[in-house]
Order: sequence, then C-alpha cells, then structure tokens
Amino acid sequence: MKKNIAEFLGTFWLVLGGCGSAVLAAAFPDVGIGLAGVSLAFGLTVLTIAYSLGPISGAHLNPAVTIGLWVGGRTATRDLVPYIISQVLGAIAAAAVLSVIATGNGSQLGDFAANGYGEHSPGGYSLTAALVTEFVMTFFFLLVILGSTDEKAPAGFAGIAIGLALTLIHLISIPVTNTSVNPARSISQAIFAGGWALSQLWVFIAAPVAGAIAGGLVYKYLRSE
Amino acid sequence: MKKNIAEFLGTFWLVLGGCGSAVLAAAFPDVGIGLAGVSLAFGLTVLTIAYSLGPISGAHLNPAVTIGLWVGGRTATRDLVPYIISQVLGAIAAAAVLSVIATGNGSQLGDFAANGYGEHSPGGYSLTAALVTEFVMTFFFLLVILGSTDEKAPAGFAGIAIGLALTLIHLISIPVTNTSVNPARSISQAIFAGGWALSQLWVFIAAPVAGAIAGGLVYKYLRSE
Amino acid sequence: MKKNIAEFLGTFWLVLGGCGSAVLAAAFPDVGIGLAGVSLAFGLTVLTIAYSLGPISGAHLNPAVTIGLWVGGRTATRDLVPYIISQVLGAIAAAAVLSVIATGNGSQLGDFAANGYGEHSPGGYSLTAALVTEFVMTFFFLLVILGSTDEKAPAGFAGIAIGLALTLIHLISIPVTNTSVNPARSISQAIFAGGWALSQLWVFIAAPVAGAIAGGLVYKYLRSE
Amino acid sequence: MKKNIAEFLGTFWLVLGGCGSAVLAAAFPDVGIGLAGVSLAFGLTVLTIAYSLGPISGAHLNPAVTIGLWVGGRTATRDLVPYIISQVLGAIAAAAVLSVIATGNGSQLGDFAANGYGEHSPGGYSLTAALVTEFVMTFFFLLVILGSTDEKAPAGFAGIAIGLALTLIHLISIPVTNTSVNPARSISQAIFAGGWALSQLWVFIAAPVAGAIAGGLVYKYLRSE
Repeated sequence: MKKNIAEFLGTFWLVLGGCGSAVLAAAFPDVGIGLAGVSLAFGLTVLTIAYSLGPISGAHLNPAVTIGLWVGGRTATRDLVPYIISQVLGAIAAAAVLSVIATGNGSQLGDFAANGYGEHSPGGYSLTAALVTEFVMTFFFLLVILGSTDEKAPAGFAGIAIGLALTLIHLISIPVTNTSVNPARSISQAIFAGGWALSQLWVFIAAPVAGAIAGGLVYKYLRSE
Repeated sequence: MKKNIAEFLGTFWLVLGGCGSAVLAAAFPDVGIGLAGVSLAFGLTVLTIAYSLGPISGAHLNPAVTIGLWVGGRTATRDLVPYIISQVLGAIAAAAVLSVIATGNGSQLGDFAANGYGEHSPGGYSLTAALVTEFVMTFFFLLVILGSTDEKAPAGFAGIAIGLALTLIHLISIPVTNTSVNPARSISQAIFAGGWALSQLWVFIAAPVAGAIAGGLVYKYLRSE
Repeated sequence: MKKNIAEFLGTFWLVLGGCGSAVLAAAFPDVGIGLAGVSLAFGLTVLTIAYSLGPISGAHLNPAVTIGLWVGGRTATRDLVPYIISQVLGAIAAAAVLSVIATGNGSQLGDFAANGYGEHSPGGYSLTAALVTEFVMTFFFLLVILGSTDEKAPAGFAGIAIGLALTLIHLISIPVTNTSVNPARSISQAIFAGGWALSQLWVFIAAPVAGAIAGGLVYKYLRSE
Repeated sequence: MKKNIAEFLGTFWLVLGGCGSAVLAAAFPDVGIGLAGVSLAFGLTVLTIAYSLGPISGAHLNPAVTIGLWVGGRTATRDLVPYIISQVLGAIAAAAVLSVIATGNGSQLGDFAANGYGEHSPGGYSLTAALVTEFVMTFFFLLVILGSTDEKAPAGFAGIAIGLALTLIHLISIPVTNTSVNPARSISQAIFAGGWALSQLWVFIAAPVAGAIAGGLVYKYLRSE
C-alpha cells in the first residue's frame, strides 16, 4: 500500500513540478525560465523523488516506465496495475492543484500543458514526427533507467542519470509534442484542457508505451549471455 | 555552539546567494540570469553547505526544515530554538550585507527579494494561490529531505537531491510568491523592504511551517511498519 | 558484438540529443533553449549513456575518444576499428531520424547542425581559430576522461565529470565551430548538409583526433613514475 | 613537478573555459549563454579538473585557494609558491590562447574578461561593494572547499560541491566585479586588457586572498575541539 502512496505522491510532484513550471514560469515576462528551465524542472522532479521515495517504491512515476521495467524483468506483475492506477491518480490530483494555482491570477487554463501534434504541436510538427519522437525518446529513457539501475552500474548514481535523462528528453522534444514520454502526465493535462487534447491523447499513451516496451526488450538482449 | 554558528553561516549563504542573485543578476540587461538562474542559485546554496557544513550541523538553514525534521524525529528538541534563532540571525546579517552591495551602484533597495501575494506577487497571484503553493512546496521539500537522508537512501547523495529540490521549487513558484518555503529568508527580506512585506510576512511563516509539519508526518507514516 | 551495439546506440543518442536540441529547440521563439541548453543536452547524452551503457562498452561515443583512450592504453587495439565504425553508423542513423522529425513541420534541413569555420562558423571565426579550438577542447576532454576514469579518482563520478566536460566545451566553443570534438557527430551532419559541410569536414576529423592523441600522451606522462 | 604541471593545466582550463565562455558565447546574438551560462562554465572547469587532475595536485587552480588551504592546514608550505607560480602561468597561457581564438573573427579584445569596479564594474558597483563582494564570496568558497574535502564529509562529492560553489558565486556577483575570487584569473585578463584593468588589479588580489585566509581560519575554528 505504501508503495502505491509513494507512486501517487511522486507522480503528483512530477506533474506539479514539470507542468507547473511550464504553465507558471516558462513564459514569465523578461525573466521566464523558458523551455530549458521547464526541462530542468521535469528532470529534477524525478531526481528528487528517486533519492527520497525511490527506496520505498522504486520511483517509476510513469506508466510507460512501469511497463518497460516489467518487460525488462524488474517489476513484479502484481505491482503493474496498482502502480499505474496510483500514477494516473497522482497526476490528476496534481493537475487539479495546479489548476487552482494557475487560475489564481485570473488567467484561463487554456491548453494547460497538454501534449499535441499537428496544429497543437508547439512547433507545428506532424503526427509522424510526434510518433517517432515519443517512441524514440521513451525507448532511450528506458535504456537509461534499466542500465543505470543495473547491478553492474555504479551504485547510487541512477537517480542523477534518470532525472537528467528526462531533462535531456525535454530539451530536445518540447517543440515537437510538448514532450510526454509519460501517459499519466498526458492524461492529467488532457482532462483539464479537454477537446483536442483528449482526442490526441492516444498518441501519448501508445507511443511512449511502445517505446518503453522496445527499450525493455533491447536492454534485455544487451545483458543476455 | 559550533552547530549554531554553522546554521548562522549556512543561512547567511542561502540568503546572500539566493536573494543576492535575484537582486543583482536576475534582470541584468541582455545577459541576466533570469528566474532559472535564481532557482539554480538558491539550490546551490543548500547543496554547497550540505556538503561542507552539513557534517557539523545537518545544514537545515531554514526554520521550517528544522521544525519538519523535529516532527519527523530527526532533530533533538534542545536544538529546535537555538537553530531557528541562528537561522534568522544569519539571514538578517546576509540581508544587511546584501543591502550594502546592492545599493553600491546607486540603486534603491525597493522590494528587495521579499515574498508577497496579491498585487505583490510577481505574477499577481491571490492569497489562496500563495498559501496552496507555499504549503505544497514545503511539504514536498520535507519529503525529499527526510527521504534522501534516510538510512535506506544511497549514502552521500542527499545534498544533491535536497539542493536541487530547492532549485525545482523555485523554478515552479517564483512567479506566484517569489518563493519562500523558508521563514528565515522571508523575514530577512521583509525587514529591509518594510511596509507591505512585513504585513504579508505571516503567510511565509505559517504556510511553510504547516507544509513542513505535514511533510514530516506523512514521511513518518510512509516509513512506519 | 554487444559492445558495438552499445556504441551504436550511445552515439545515436549523442547525435539525436545534442544535434536534435540544436536543430529543434535552440532558437524556438521566445522560450528557446539557446546555446546553453544545447550545451547541457550534449553533456547529458554522454552522462546518461555513461551510467547506463557504460558498463557494457565504456561509452566512448566518439572516434576521437576511442583513439585517445587507445593512446592512453585504455582501449584494446582489437576494439579500435569496430568501435569507430559503430559510432559513425550510429551517428548517421540518428541524423536520418532527426531529419525526419526536423522536416515534420515543413522546415528545410538547411545546414542541419553541421560544423564549420570561416563564413560557416556561427560567429565567423577563421580556420586557425577553429583548428586551435577543436584541438584544445578535445585535448582537455581526453584529460578529463582519462583522469576521472583512473583508479585513483573517486569511483562512480566519471560519468558526471565527462558529461559535464562536454557541456562546458559547448558553452565555450559553439560560436567558433558549432563545436565538434567528435568526428562521428560531424560526419553525420555533413552528410545531410552536404556542400560546404563536406568540404570543411576534414577539420573536424583532424583537429579532434590530434587533440585526443595529445591528451592521451600528456595524461600518460602525468601518471608515469 | 607533475603536481605543478597539473595546476598549470587546470588553471589553463579554468581561464580558457570560464573567461572563454564569457568572451565568446555570453552575448552571442539571440541564443547567447548569458551570465548563467558563464557561471556554469566557470564551475564546470573546476568540477571537471577536480575529478581528473585532482588526484594528482588537489586541483586548487587558484592562488587564493592555495593560501586558504595552507591557512587551514591542508597545503604543505613547500607547495605554496610553486603552486601559485604554476597557476598564474597557466592562466596567462590560457589568456594568450583565448586571445588568438577571440580575435579570429576580426573582433578586438577590448576589456577581455577583466575584473573591475566603479565604471568598470559590469553594473557600475563601487569599490566598497567590490571589496565586500570579493571578500565574502572567497570566504564562503573556502568554507565549502575545506568542509567538503574534510574526512567527515561524504567521500567523492567534493568536486561537485566546489565546482558548483564557483557557479553559484558567479551567478551572484558577475554584475558587481565580473567575479574574480581568483587572482590568477584576474591577472591573466588584466595583462591583455591593460590600462584600467591593471590599475584595479590589486582589488582582485587583496580581497580574494583576505577572504580565503578568513575562511581558512573560521573553518579551523569550527572543526577545533
């Protein structure tokens, strides 16, 4: 049970911190943190939870990660569904809190920090570009997660490597899809943004999960005898 | 006694570094560090003190942290008041030094780096938004502190996780309240800014302390048998 | 074989992440990540692969590094050519994927993230400046790599030092040459940019390799009895 | 002898990287790295050398640090003068190389990255502000260095804490003095900038050295029985 609460809290922090920095601070006049600041924020949510709640739940904070780790043989089958439910609920709770804060100066929520493609991509990128990007980014995310938590990797550094991998992924791909690689994050924003965000949501569930499964399989092969 | 001097020096560094970067460098023409640079500076004050004076005092540097750690069973009751006094005095001393530097080019102190809500929020956020933000940010700050210094967490990495948690908190919330999560920091700036900053100061004492207590209690539950 | 696949994947990630952030996000309107964000991205590709695939292949991801490590006595002669081939193929594959994404909003590839000097230097720097810069940057890159992976250095930290060395190198030298220090990265971009990029490519093979050899020799001397 | 070569090379890297990023990349049009990027670069020169050449020489890279460590009982008296000479020579050599690169696009050197106060302070800060700033910044730099390399501190993390302390110092104080805290860095730039930079140079020797001595003494007291 405590594992699931840890996943709930950790994913809450990921969405509040990552999407929160995007909504509240990215485009603040003159001194805004920009996409680089948002990228750093997303990565630091994972880094900070990895070192604090990681010892309790493993700090997945992401259904695609949980699935990829299950494919890679690291997540028990009985944890699969409870983890994913906890992550999605934590993400939605964070989006609710963020919506209270973000509208606290009279602003509208608008598109929130929803993920999109085509005319809803920040840089106008096509569905194909979005699918390729989300697939490849999640694929490498899982390679980094599986490799850095492997017993052959130096102990203790995984939280840095994994958190900064998420920063890197955002540095590359916010212009393409607003960066998902995490269905819980995408679901939480789409619920509040509604409309187009809900109808494009399948991309940000399917592509990250497919990329995560591919990453899990490739890493398994790399470590096989 | 030396523990208290370490808290004095560490909190001095937190305020000089964090508020100093905000006052001196954030909006420097064309090449200013922006809110992302200020966020990094706040976090690095904690990171650098954690690894240097941490072995002496534990590097709390923040009354809310000291109270949250006490709730979580990590601070001795006899240290509680001396630590808080040392932190507040260190913060005020740093604000005095910063005021000398900041006015050294003929500038006025103005609002200094004071925390505020409503019309004194950088982005015009309401009292409710401020209270929610400060509560939730300090709550997670304590989860990260308690978790990463737990004996179950990888040894040595807590200074990175805690320092970068403070960076993350600033990346999200400077637009809302100018980010406190630390009553000593807020007191030190309000004394020099005066007026509205003093009359809004209760928010930046009450909300961080309440968030820290909640964080301490939740972490205690998560680690209970 | 698996070592070579790891080098292929790692160099793929270096080019997709580093050149991808440059092409997609550096100059994004208003909130672009700028040269600092690109510098961080390049460094994080190396950091993340060092902690994940490093235990498999050593995470060279760069023919100049492989050659410098061979000079320094750290790479087996039998790995030299297979590593370099894997790195170049991985870089080209990444450039192909990046070209699909980058043109997914109707943009032209243009100069891609190719390296250049003279009129093709981002800041208009001469061939001499380019040669000096690439030589010296790769020289120090190898000193950091050889030193931080030395048994006398603190265990586990090499991935941080090496990754952030590449960030530092980019913070300095993007204006001069767009920063190579890595022939595989340069080749992959020149193939897609064509024309001037191909005719200037020799600089970004010769100077990094020469710098890496010098770095290998100097470090060997520093550690000799 | 090899220790001195390591100090020469390390201080070369500090000046080439830190001042180089300032001169070449800080104000690059539209995508320049700004003062935050320069701050990061200075810190990463120290971080990368600490983990690579640190095991050889201790990676002081700064006469004030060498003096402060000597006061704190960590540097042998016989190393004092050779280290300082090596550092100053390394800094000057780097400035020479940087001058070749920086003028390679037809630019004038101008003020290079020289330190100054009054009308030569980036933000127009007075001599008093400059003295206070350089003293206090170097004081805390030494506390971080002495504390994080203490046997009571977690092993291996000192390079991160010290490097990022230098980043923090720059995030705060570039607007005031262009940030020295390092006489070798200041000497190297003043030689090339000439004129006012030479006549103001005493400030950037005296204040850092005084601050370093104070830091050494205070840390010694904190650790005394």
